[in-house]
Amino acid sequence: MTSWKDYQEKNKDRFLQELLDLLRIPSVSAKSECREDMKRCAEAVKKSLLEAGVDRAEVYNTDGHPIVYGEKIVDPSKPTVLVYGHYDVQPAEPLELWNSPPFEPVVRDGKIYARGSADDKGQFYMHVKALEIMTKTNSLPGNIKFLIEGEEEVGSSNLGKFVRANKELLKADVILISDSSMLSMDTPSIDIGVRGLSYIQVEVTGPNRDLHSGIYGGAVANPILILSKMIASCHDENNRITIPGFYDDVLEASEAERKLMAQAPYDEAAYKHDLGVKELWGEKGYTTNERTGIRPTLELNGIWGGYTGEGSKTVLPSKAFAKISARLVPNQSSEKITAMLLDHFRKIAPASVRVEAEAFHGGEPYITPIDSPAYQAAAKAIQTSFGKNAIPVRGGGSIPICSIMEKELGVKIVFMGFGLDSDNLHSPNEKFDLFNYYKGIETIPYFHKFFAESR
Amino acid sequence: MTSWKDYQEKNKDRFLQELLDLLRIPSVSAKSECREDMKRCAEAVKKSLLEAGVDRAEVYNTDGHPIVYGEKIVDPSKPTVLVYGHYDVQPAEPLELWNSPPFEPVVRDGKIYARGSADDKGQFYMHVKALEIMTKTNSLPGNIKFLIEGEEEVGSSNLGKFVRANKELLKADVILISDSSMLSMDTPSIDIGVRGLSYIQVEVTGPNRDLHSGIYGGAVANPILILSKMIASCHDENNRITIPGFYDDVLEASEAERKLMAQAPYDEAAYKHDLGVKELWGEKGYTTNERTGIRPTLELNGIWGGYTGEGSKTVLPSKAFAKISARLVPNQSSEKITAMLLDHFRKIAPASVRVEAEAFHGGEPYITPIDSPAYQAAAKAIQTSFGKNAIPVRGGGSIPICSIMEKELGVKIVFMGFGLDSDNLHSPNEKFDLFNYYKGIETIPYFHKFFAESR
Repeated sequence: MTSWKDYQEKNKDRFLQELLDLLRIPSVSAKSECREDMKRCAEAVKKSLLEAGVDRAEVYNTDGHPIVYGEKIVDPSKPTVLVYGHYDVQPAEPLELWNSPPFEPVVRDGKIYARGSADDKGQFYMHVKALEIMTKTNSLPGNIKFLIEGEEEVGSSNLGKFVRANKELLKADVILISDSSMLSMDTPSIDIGVRGLSYIQVEVTGPNRDLHSGIYGGAVANPILILSKMIASCHDENNRITIPGFYDDVLEASEAERKLMAQAPYDEAAYKHDLGVKELWGEKGYTTNERTGIRPTLELNGIWGGYTGEGSKTVLPSKAFAKISARLVPNQSSEKITAMLLDHFRKIAPASVRVEAEAFHGGEPYITPIDSPAYQAAAKAIQTSFGKNAIPVRGGGSIPICSIMEKELGVKIVFMGFGLDSDNLHSPNEKFDLFNYYKGIETIPYFHKFFAESR
Repeated sequence: MTSWKDYQEKNKDRFLQELLDLLRIPSVSAKSECREDMKRCAEAVKKSLLEAGVDRAEVYNTDGHPIVYGEKIVDPSKPTVLVYGHYDVQPAEPLELWNSPPFEPVVRDGKIYARGSADDKGQFYMHVKALEIMTKTNSLPGNIKFLIEGEEEVGSSNLGKFVRANKELLKADVILISDSSMLSMDTPSIDIGVRGLSYIQVEVTGPNRDLHSGIYGGAVANPILILSKMIASCHDENNRITIPGFYDDVLEASEAERKLMAQAPYDEAAYKHDLGVKELWGEKGYTTNERTGIRPTLELNGIWGGYTGEGSKTVLPSKAFAKISARLVPNQSSEKITAMLLDHFRKIAPASVRVEAEAFHGGEPYITPIDSPAYQAAAKAIQTSFGKNAIPVRGGGSIPICSIMEKELGVKIVFMGFGLDSDNLHSPNEKFDLFNYYKGIETIPYFHKFFAESR
C-alpha cells in the first residue's frame, strides 16, 4: 500500500494547481456583484469533493449563497467526522495595495498569494486532498462529511437554518474546522476557542445637505465631528470600553488559564517590528495575548464622510458613517451586545444630529474542552506530523456558526488551523505557505486515524 | 440711447445661454484630470470679454491654472474698477446627490442648476454682461479691468505671484468682487469682510498593513479610533476650540458691532427648518450670525479609513485620514494658524501611531471699511436697483486673495455679491436664481456710475 506521504509527494503539484484554480474564483460573499461567482465556486467545490472520493455531493441553495455538502460513509457504525469550512472570502479592497491581483494566485518564495489562500479555501481544501489520499490508499478509518458554506464572512445567517433543518444529514461525532492559525510551524498550537462578533454600521446626519463650511461652519453640527466624539467616548483612558454593561457577562479567565497563556512564546519586539509600530495599544492590565484572546474588544472597521478626493473642498457634510464591531468572549451574547451597541450609539447622539444604526452579522463566542477524545486526537496528530506538542491557545477571530453547530448537532468542535497570524487575512496580500498547506494535508489523516481509534 | 434695462431685456435669453455654455465646462481646479478643461474655460472667458467690449484680453499661464486678464480703458485719467472673479469651481462630488448632472446646466423653477452657477461663474459673468450693456449703450463711465483666475477654490497660490509681478497692469482705484451672497432679495446686504482659511490633511498610520480585526484587535492602535480621539479633543464642551493659542490673535468684535449685527433679520426656526436640524450647534456665548461671521471655527471637511464598501469587513486598517479646515477672523494669520494646526495634530498623536500632516491652501481674513467712497457707491447702486438700503454683514466664507490684493495694489475691496446662502455652494445641486443673475447685471452699471461720480 502506498503511504500517505508517498501519495502526497507524487501528487503535490496537482494538489497545488487545483487550489490555485479555486482561488481564481472571486467568491466575495459581501458583494452582490459576485453572486454568480459564488454559485460557480460552490459547483467547483462539489466537483472537487466528488473527485476526491465522496459517495455523494450536493449544492444546496439558500436565501443567500449556496451550501456544499458531501459525504463518504464507509460504515455507519464507525465514527463520523464533519468537516466544516467556507468557500467565500473577504472583499479584496484596497486593491492598490496588493502586489499581485487578489484573484490571480501566484506562488512567490514558497507562499501562495491570493484572497482566500489561507481564509479559508486553502485550509478547507487540505481536507479535500486528505480525503483523496485516504480513499486512494484505502485507509479512511471512519466516515467523513463535508459542510462547506459560502457565508462565513457575512455571518453565516443561512447556515444556521440549514443546520437546524438537516440534523440527521449532518449527524457526526465531532466537527473539525481548519479556519484558524498556529503560533508558528516551530511552535504548533491548537485553538481552543474563538471570539464572538457583533457588527454594526452607524450613520450620523447633520444638515439635510452638504453645506459650504464657511457659510455654515460654526452654526450647524458637523456629522464627522459628532461621530468622532461618539467614537472617542467609547474607550476610556485605560482603553477599556465605556459602554454601560459591556463587560457585565464576561466570564473572566482563571488565574490558572492566564498563567498557561503566559507560557506561549511571545516576542514583543518582533511582534511590534512585524507590525511596524513603536508601541502596542489595548486594555490596561492584560497582556497582548490576553487582549486578543480572552478579552472583548471594540474596533473601528471603517469610517467615511465629506470630501475624500484629491485636494481640498470646504464642505460641511450632511452625513458621516462608521462600521464598528466588537469581538466577544464567553459568556457574552452577540445578540445582546449588538442591541447594546445600536442602543448606545442612538442614545449618545446629541440633538443636533440624527443617528441611524443598523446591525450586520454577528456570532457567539465558543470554547472547546481540551480533555475530549477529539481534542486529544488532534493533539496526537500534530505531535505525529510535527514531532512537537501543540500548545492550546485562544484564537482572536470569530467563526459565527460554531456555537450553533455545537448546540444543534450536540457535538464538540476541534479547531485544527494551519495558517499563521501573519497570513494577512482580510488584508491585502493574503498568503498561505506551501509548507503549511502540505503539512496540513499530511496531518489531517492522522486525526481521522486517532479519532477513530479513540472511539 | 437705449437704456441699460432695455438692452438687458432684449438680450436676456442670450445672456442666459452664454452663462449656461460656460457652466458646461467642468473647470474643477482641485482635479488634475480637469487641466485641459481649465485651459478651455480660460479661453472661453477671454473670448467672452472680447465680445463684451474690452480693448484687449489675455490668458496668462501660471505654474497652476491660467489667469484671464482683460481691460477697457476709456480714459486713463478716469477712475478704474478692477473686477475680480474666478472661473474654477469646487469638485461636484457626491455626484449621486445631484438631481441633474453638475456640468449639464438646467433651468428649473427660475433657478440655474449647475456647479459654479453661483460660485462664481454666474456672478463674475454678471460683470461681463454689465460691461457689454455699458459699451453697447456708450455709457461706461470709467475704466474697467478684469482679473478672472482659476485657482480660487484651491487657495489662489499662483495669483499672489501674478499680482505682485503685475502691479502696473492691475492698477485700479477699487477692486470689485461678486463672490458672496445677500441675506435675501428682500433684504439686500453687502459683505464687509470674509473669513480667512487654514486647510490641512491629517494621515494617521497604525500598523503597517491592514489587519484582521479579530487576530490583532485589542493589541494594536486602530488609526480610526486614534484619529477620532484627536478630532474629538479639539472642541470642548462649549464647542470652543481647545488648540492652545488658537484664539490668541482674535480681534473681538465690539459691542457696537455685535448690536448692529443683531439687527439683521434672522429667523431661527426657518433657518433650522431649511437645514433639517432640530438644534443648531456652535461656540457658546455667540449668536448664529456671530458664529458664522465674527468667530473662527474648526471644521471637518472629510474623513476616511478602513472598509467603506457594501456590507461588512472585519479589518483593523493601517491608515485613517481627515481633511480639516479653520475659518479665521481678524487678526488671525492663516500661516500661523496652519502651522499651529499641523503642529497640534502631530503633537497630540500617541506613540502607538504615526501622524503626517500637510498644509493645503490658506487665506487671510479681510475686512473692508463702510465709509469709503467705493462702499458708498455699492450701497447707492443697490439702493437704486432694489429700492432698499443694503445691510452691512460679515461673510463667513473666504476669498484667499483679498488681503494680498489690497496689500499689493493699495486699494480697498468692495464685495457686491448677488447669491444666497441657500445656493448650495460647494454642495450638490448648486443653483443661482435667474432673478439674482439679472438683478446683478442691472445693479453693476450703477456701481460704475456712482463710483466714477464720487472721484
